Amino acid sequence: MGGDSAPLSEVAGAIDTVKRYDHLNIILVGSEDVISRELAKYSYDKDRIKIHNCSEVIEMHDSPTEALKKKPDSSIVVGLKLLKQNAAQAFISAGNTGAVMAASLLLLGRISNVTRPTIGESFPTDKGLSIVFDVGANMDCKPIHLLEFAIMGVVYANHIFKSENPRVALLSVGEEKTKGDNLTVETYELLEKSHLNFIGNIEGADVLRGKAEVIVCDGFVGNVILKFAESVPAVLKNRVRNYASGNIFRKIRAKIMASGLRQILKDFDYQEYGGVPLLGVNGITIIGHGKSSPKAIQNMILKAERMVRENITEFIQAKIKDIKEFLPKTITN
Amino acid sequence: MGGDSAPLSEVAGAIDTVKRYDHLNIILVGSEDVISRELAKYSYDKDRIKIHNCSEVIEMHDSPTEALKKKPDSSIVVGLKLLKQNAAQAFISAGNTGAVMAASLLLLGRISNVTRPTIGESFPTDKGLSIVFDVGANMDCKPIHLLEFAIMGVVYANHIFKSENPRVALLSVGEEKTKGDNLTVETYELLEKSHLNFIGNIEGADVLRGKAEVIVCDGFVGNVILKFAESVPAVLKNRVRNYASGNIFRKIRAKIMASGLRQILKDFDYQEYGGVPLLGVNGITIIGHGKSSPKAIQNMILKAERMVRENITEFIQAKIKDIKEFLPKTITN
Repeated sequence: MGGDSAPLSEVAGAIDTVKRYDHLNIILVGSEDVISRELAKYSYDKDRIKIHNCSEVIEMHDSPTEALKKKPDSSIVVGLKLLKQNAAQAFISAGNTGAVMAASLLLLGRISNVTRPTIGESFPTDKGLSIVFDVGANMDCKPIHLLEFAIMGVVYANHIFKSENPRVALLSVGEEKTKGDNLTVETYELLEKSHLNFIGNIEGADVLRGKAEVIVCDGFVGNVILKFAESVPAVLKNRVRNYASGNIFRKIRAKIMASGLRQILKDFDYQEYGGVPLLGVNGITIIGHGKSSPKAIQNMILKAERMVRENITEFIQAKIKDIKEFLPKTITN
Repeated sequence: MGGDSAPLSEVAGAIDTVKRYDHLNIILVGSEDVISRELAKYSYDKDRIKIHNCSEVIEMHDSPTEALKKKPDSSIVVGLKLLKQNAAQAFISAGNTGAVMAASLLLLGRISNVTRPTIGESFPTDKGLSIVFDVGANMDCKPIHLLEFAIMGVVYANHIFKSENPRVALLSVGEEKTKGDNLTVETYELLEKSHLNFIGNIEGADVLRGKAEVIVCDGFVGNVILKFAESVPAVLKNRVRNYASGNIFRKIRAKIMASGLRQILKDFDYQEYGGVPLLGVNGITIIGHGKSSPKAIQNMILKAERMVRENITEFIQAKIKDIKEFLPKTITN
């Protein structure tokens, strides 16, 4: 109910998903009235899309922690409870990101040995996707948190990207291990000891170059760079438009440029990736853009299904236990 | 002597500058042999380009602080001494960035009330230039440092961009003052109190949108985003090339796109800006890319001249004193 165009995109995405994929069934959590009115526009198999009614909506501007207390019958809280009770196997939402994270932590709980669950976003590179952890869930991180992001990222890249031995890079300001801030210099030491496939530091210029499948950084930096990257297609579009306002020849060239850019930047359209996974909680949660299209909703469902099928939660649990057991006790706190 | 193609670009840039601008004279600091051999390729007014001989070169891979001790007769140290002794009015270098900063701090000293000198880089926006401070000189900043960057940035934007009342924004992960990490949340409070023209937080997506003339952030974040931005034209060029490798129609379209992109991204070419100013030291220092072209060298000289003419150092001194006097003593340490 919390997405910008809810429940239009959610319903359309659900309908399209059950039509295309026989093994996926959807529970739409929210106002039964509103949702059933929207569903009535489509013909579909009523056994495969159910409504679970609830009365409240957490809005985008609501403070996450307050909203959880004040709106216990919201679609986010109720949906995550269904997951907790095994009435569903994954939860997806285009609503208030902070609220989905907070509710997932509270209701599903953290995987043991994980101190900071994380969200990661895929960046398109010439050599396939790289995924950056964290992109905004965690500010003021400590080295151990970045190590956890790396471990969870490796499991994700391994099982979802099918990358056999994912390379891990640390985002910093120079390649040398002494370059960076206190956080990255200390994290470098940890990653080196971890026996992950750690390739060292990469710089901002390397993010789109496909040097590593998993890139780790503090959620502040990750969020800034993610939003910067997301702004690039619009900036270019705007510049092409200004370029066109010269003469007729420029107009023609600008048309060709605009359509060409659309094609070469197709994978910069974050709708395609269908939301970011929240890793480190006991359950599968995917968080989408507020403005998720029906296609984005469908991609979120498919991503969630893949994460369920691949037992991501169990693999994270195992791998993080393995690595943390090797670390001195002083570091892990 | 420390630039990637030194002294070729340096000499060519100097020659071109004295030919175009009657009031600018250049001292080339470095190996007299090497430089005079390079100068001999040109005809120019010998009174206006002098060589100041020195015997050592700080290389790109040298550790800045060690290099200053071990190479006292390097072009960076000797050049900055000339500035200190008023034999020159500004110093520019395409050499080792860390060494230029360290030597400037050591030899010129900090402007009083400045705790952290800073380097800023211009970003092209649809509404003119925005300048981001810091882009790599300062890691692990405190709120007071970001306030200082803002003050110095405002003086710079005011006098160099001729922006009358430069807007200052804080780079963060959301517009609300509570969004961000500890550093930005505390810095927000300081900037609010400062009576600068503070417009609040901006996100990564706003950097290229021209919302503020001066954007402040920790040097780690600034460096990552600067290098990411610098990588965009090459990424696009590469994608256009891949796009072209389809058929003849795509080849033609790709040609048009490539030439169009070159035009609309002209201001993404950081050579045009000619290096970053180091603000907060007693003197004008400009630091360029290692791979600075002759044109970049000339732009660095012109930028330095403008900074000298506008008395940037004195204005920073005055403005930082003004603002710091208003702050409680507990904050300024």
